[in-house]
Amino acid sequence: MIIVMEAQSTPQDIQAICQKLETMSLESHVINGVTQSVIGVIGEITDELCETANLWPKVEKALRVGKPYKLVSRECQPSGSIVQVGSLAIGKDKVVIAGPCAVETEDQMLQTAKAVKSAGANMLRGGAFKPRTSPYAFQGLKVKGLELLAEAGKAYDLPVVTEVVDPRDVEVVAQYADMLQIGARNMQNFSLLQEVGQTRKPVLLKRGLSSTVQEWLMAAEYIMAGGNSQVVLCERGIRTFEPWTRNTLDVSAIALAKEVSHLPVLADPSHASGKRSLVEPLAKAALAVGADGLIIEVHPNPDKALSDGPQSLDFAEFATFMQHLQLIKGA
Amino acid sequence: MIIVMEAQSTPQDIQAICQKLETMSLESHVINGVTQSVIGVIGEITDELCETANLWPKVEKALRVGKPYKLVSRECQPSGSIVQVGSLAIGKDKVVIAGPCAVETEDQMLQTAKAVKSAGANMLRGGAFKPRTSPYAFQGLKVKGLELLAEAGKAYDLPVVTEVVDPRDVEVVAQYADMLQIGARNMQNFSLLQEVGQTRKPVLLKRGLSSTVQEWLMAAEYIMAGGNSQVVLCERGIRTFEPWTRNTLDVSAIALAKEVSHLPVLADPSHASGKRSLVEPLAKAALAVGADGLIIEVHPNPDKALSDGPQSLDFAEFATFMQHLQLIKGA
Amino acid sequence: MIIVMEAQSTPQDIQAICQKLETMSLESHVINGVTQSVIGVIGEITDELCETANLWPKVEKALRVGKPYKLVSRECQPSGSIVQVGSLAIGKDKVVIAGPCAVETEDQMLQTAKAVKSAGANMLRGGAFKPRTSPYAFQGLKVKGLELLAEAGKAYDLPVVTEVVDPRDVEVVAQYADMLQIGARNMQNFSLLQEVGQTRKPVLLKRGLSSTVQEWLMAAEYIMAGGNSQVVLCERGIRTFEPWTRNTLDVSAIALAKEVSHLPVLADPSHASGKRSLVEPLAKAALAVGADGLIIEVHPNPDKALSDGPQSLDFAEFATFMQHLQLIKGA
Amino acid sequence: MIIVMEAQSTPQDIQAICQKLETMSLESHVINGVTQSVIGVIGEITDELCETANLWPKVEKALRVGKPYKLVSRECQPSGSIVQVGSLAIGKDKVVIAGPCAVETEDQMLQTAKAVKSAGANMLRGGAFKPRTSPYAFQGLKVKGLELLAEAGKAYDLPVVTEVVDPRDVEVVAQYADMLQIGARNMQNFSLLQEVGQTRKPVLLKRGLSSTVQEWLMAAEYIMAGGNSQVVLCERGIRTFEPWTRNTLDVSAIALAKEVSHLPVLADPSHASGKRSLVEPLAKAALAVGADGLIIEVHPNPDKALSDGPQSLDFAEFATFMQHLQLIKGA
Repeated sequence: MIIVMEAQSTPQDIQAICQKLETMSLESHVINGVTQSVIGVIGEITDELCETANLWPKVEKALRVGKPYKLVSRECQPSGSIVQVGSLAIGKDKVVIAGPCAVETEDQMLQTAKAVKSAGANMLRGGAFKPRTSPYAFQGLKVKGLELLAEAGKAYDLPVVTEVVDPRDVEVVAQYADMLQIGARNMQNFSLLQEVGQTRKPVLLKRGLSSTVQEWLMAAEYIMAGGNSQVVLCERGIRTFEPWTRNTLDVSAIALAKEVSHLPVLADPSHASGKRSLVEPLAKAALAVGADGLIIEVHPNPDKALSDGPQSLDFAEFATFMQHLQLIKGA
Repeated sequence: MIIVMEAQSTPQDIQAICQKLETMSLESHVINGVTQSVIGVIGEITDELCETANLWPKVEKALRVGKPYKLVSRECQPSGSIVQVGSLAIGKDKVVIAGPCAVETEDQMLQTAKAVKSAGANMLRGGAFKPRTSPYAFQGLKVKGLELLAEAGKAYDLPVVTEVVDPRDVEVVAQYADMLQIGARNMQNFSLLQEVGQTRKPVLLKRGLSSTVQEWLMAAEYIMAGGNSQVVLCERGIRTFEPWTRNTLDVSAIALAKEVSHLPVLADPSHASGKRSLVEPLAKAALAVGADGLIIEVHPNPDKALSDGPQSLDFAEFATFMQHLQLIKGA
Repeated sequence: MIIVMEAQSTPQDIQAICQKLETMSLESHVINGVTQSVIGVIGEITDELCETANLWPKVEKALRVGKPYKLVSRECQPSGSIVQVGSLAIGKDKVVIAGPCAVETEDQMLQTAKAVKSAGANMLRGGAFKPRTSPYAFQGLKVKGLELLAEAGKAYDLPVVTEVVDPRDVEVVAQYADMLQIGARNMQNFSLLQEVGQTRKPVLLKRGLSSTVQEWLMAAEYIMAGGNSQVVLCERGIRTFEPWTRNTLDVSAIALAKEVSHLPVLADPSHASGKRSLVEPLAKAALAVGADGLIIEVHPNPDKALSDGPQSLDFAEFATFMQHLQLIKGA
Repeated sequence: MIIVMEAQSTPQDIQAICQKLETMSLESHVINGVTQSVIGVIGEITDELCETANLWPKVEKALRVGKPYKLVSRECQPSGSIVQVGSLAIGKDKVVIAGPCAVETEDQMLQTAKAVKSAGANMLRGGAFKPRTSPYAFQGLKVKGLELLAEAGKAYDLPVVTEVVDPRDVEVVAQYADMLQIGARNMQNFSLLQEVGQTRKPVLLKRGLSSTVQEWLMAAEYIMAGGNSQVVLCERGIRTFEPWTRNTLDVSAIALAKEVSHLPVLADPSHASGKRSLVEPLAKAALAVGADGLIIEVHPNPDKALSDGPQSLDFAEFATFMQHLQLIKGA
């Protein structure tokens, strides 16, 4: 920890801080600068101590040296993690997860699974428990939706991922899904993170709408601290002042997460833009910046979808999309 | 719903949209403008329909007329709601909720309750279940914390409010607390909102860090739609680019929420600023803009607090703060 | 400056940095922490040096201790500045500046001056050079507008303030105006800041839409470094994700600016909200938080205004507004 | 224009609005919906009218149909513009502009020009007039810097671009530079936009730190409305809450600008990130999303640069960067 003293502090003020630190078995080193003094503090330092040190008399600020995350860091594990979902090795193989925002019918799921598989997707998505901003909007088919998703995945040999929104549902979702998704709005739902941390299912952790990269990594740290190391990050756009897109895809967060952490990182250009015409260019950008794969909304009939139609591709569009991506796949 | 057609659309394009609407039993009125045509659509219109209409051929955009919230709106209930917590009538009486960020010890709670009561606070706060960004930080005393909080409240005749972070804990928290708090990070934890909507306990609903005012109202709508109309809103600062404060207190959100909704609105200047010196000026601003009360962090010994020390007032500071507020209370 | 070394750096790496610093005549103090080492650097340190030190091998980060502003700081001048505009002492007297967004006609200005004077305003505003986001929008009456503004001010003994947008216009604007306004979009137009810094006219410096408080103070520092110490700051709302208001009034920026700097600070609730119904509550909040005054848009006929009608008060509304403010004025 | 009436408005209220519109020679079409009525308004409608219509009695909101920009739009010119700078055809050829943030010495410029030319760059950059947030920071060599930049460009047959920050400098900068740059902080310096609109020099228009895509296009519209159609847009990162990067590169803004406008769009990954390690991944993302080229900071000795060292590549790094980009160039 570094303590920067106010310009007006006296040697007595500095002495008082050093004594306080000594009572905590911390070692102090004072550096008297031209305008201000700085105290370097050595020992076992917690976030809480650093926060409160900001309050001590004549302290201008106290800064913690070092990082609050451990298990997710590249320093802890220099080589990139590989998260195995069925036969798919995320972090090694490029993954394309495709499917509708919400599971609606058996037909919809079987058709979609068939179409995305034949276009080259290697995993199926579909929401059974839907977090909706309105209590009056369609909230998903729940367990029935899980069944339809699992059935479609089996029929076309695609592992499936679906969102879990309540710690009480983790067990049932884990029965049907190959991978558990934590949505953006639940990125700091710590009870839910702890609960999926207790399972041994791979987790797809979406970044919160206004989360810093560090907070995103700390959410992954929660899951890993519970003993579940199978975490895949997913950037899905942040909230900004721009009204022409639903959110703003933050590609530098992908690059930063890859640099700082060993976890695989996917991108969700569908939710990030909310706009069909932007899905392909943003997907290309995400792969170019180093993403390990994509999650794409595909619906047999986007203009009749029960949610998120405007950003969903239909089957023909998705097939074209996959062909266009080949060009960039080597990058 | 209003559908704005692209400038290049033909009468046939417009005709096609109108026919599609007719199959949904919706009535269309076409207005041919100088550069573009507009279709006014009358009938039962859902958010989903409006979203997907954006995808129809030659549609530039589809806009929903009307508001997605009902129960929280002033149109639904023109007079301001009064939420009764013990003998306190929030929305009628100005409320000052005070106490530590986290419940730590019996002594801490009893001392704090005594001090804040004598300074004029009319409700006690204290966190027993703490949502922390790090899995390694102090997570609260849990049920033991609830007991200490309730005991201190009883000893000094102060109703108590505490945060609930997991739907599975709602029952136990409701046994001890007079009011349930939903924290900013859980504002869109819809499972939790539904669960507290099932109780008949008053709820203090904090605004999410990057939530729009409409999303905040929709979160309250979730609770009310469950049958619990005892909701109090609380603005606690939004995330911006400013590094000198932890968050940015959004006083216009308080004014907007009061204008659009009948629910009482409190402000939390402690979390909004993260800075002791700003608590008093921001508290004054919140009351001046029309807030129904305040929630203030108070700790016997802020520089030893287990969390959020830098923004906590000590007893003497809180007493002075309450005296200074008298000046503005009439406003 | 403090240099935090990477966890993996060796004594040789640290030695190399210290030698580099020595060649710059800077003194180094190494503190070896538990996980990382820190170097305290003493001597004449520039922002540029601190920036580039971040690039040196094995450096995790370099932080500058101390503040980049001088003349604007409370450390430089502990008592609050008073800026004299005619007989008005801003910083001592509470100021209410009122008038239309744009100067349109002689009648409009004379009527407005009369009305705002009689309601209690002590200064007149009106834009002659209008910065408009569209090249096709009304850009102001220019010199003719300055004449009308000055005439109305003289007729009712109100000092006048008006915006200057081009360094080439500073001289002519200074002939007519008692105070020069720098608009939010020009807060970092450094040529313009330098030019008004060369005059001896008081300056009203609006905060940029997405400027930090420090950047705002640095813009004031530009003007003061030019020799003009008559600077008044004005908070007018920042850009956030909220669609229901034009901008978000940042009252904590007012409190911070007053704490850190000796300059007077006003608030502009009209531009901050873009919404007539919010002008009064936001004005009260700004005064409660410590603002030295307000700037309010008033127009004889807001629903015919050539710009910013939705946020303008008419004469009767402004008179009521001023009466309501009396209640809070003592605060 | 569409006027949405409040739910409580009566037929008389609606009639009153229609009469008001008739006096302005505008045609009204009333649509009575289930909960609210809507008036479609036909005729010559300005932004100002639409703004003030929001104030009329019983009006909930007034929305303008149609776009405020013309000359920059793809509707106005469906094929992409090509902006010729010397022999370089921006919009047709992929452009890589490279060079230091600030022109410092003759040697620095000649060495850099040689190095970037041989690595494959096709244009040279270098700042002579530097907009700096601190009045005490290095402000550039001014005309001497223009001379050194032009000399280096000529020596290695590279067209040169440099920033102009003051309308009074446009003439002199245009004498030396092949392309004029408008910096992010001056994107809404309308005097400067008008002045460069009067020249016939190509303009590189950077996006403001918190500008919407529409505001960026409106700034380009200013230049084109002055008669200068040689405009190239440049995305350089927006301001968000993320502390780990200087700004956040907004790749969807590049895709949107290309979709809505015919102007070429470049990206500046150096300023967007402020971090050397992110320059290459962000450059790849920008090209993948459809950017027409890049502007990259290169310095012979980044750790001695007078500004923006931390984001500058040295010659070897730039050569490697150019080789890596080949992989993606076809995309």
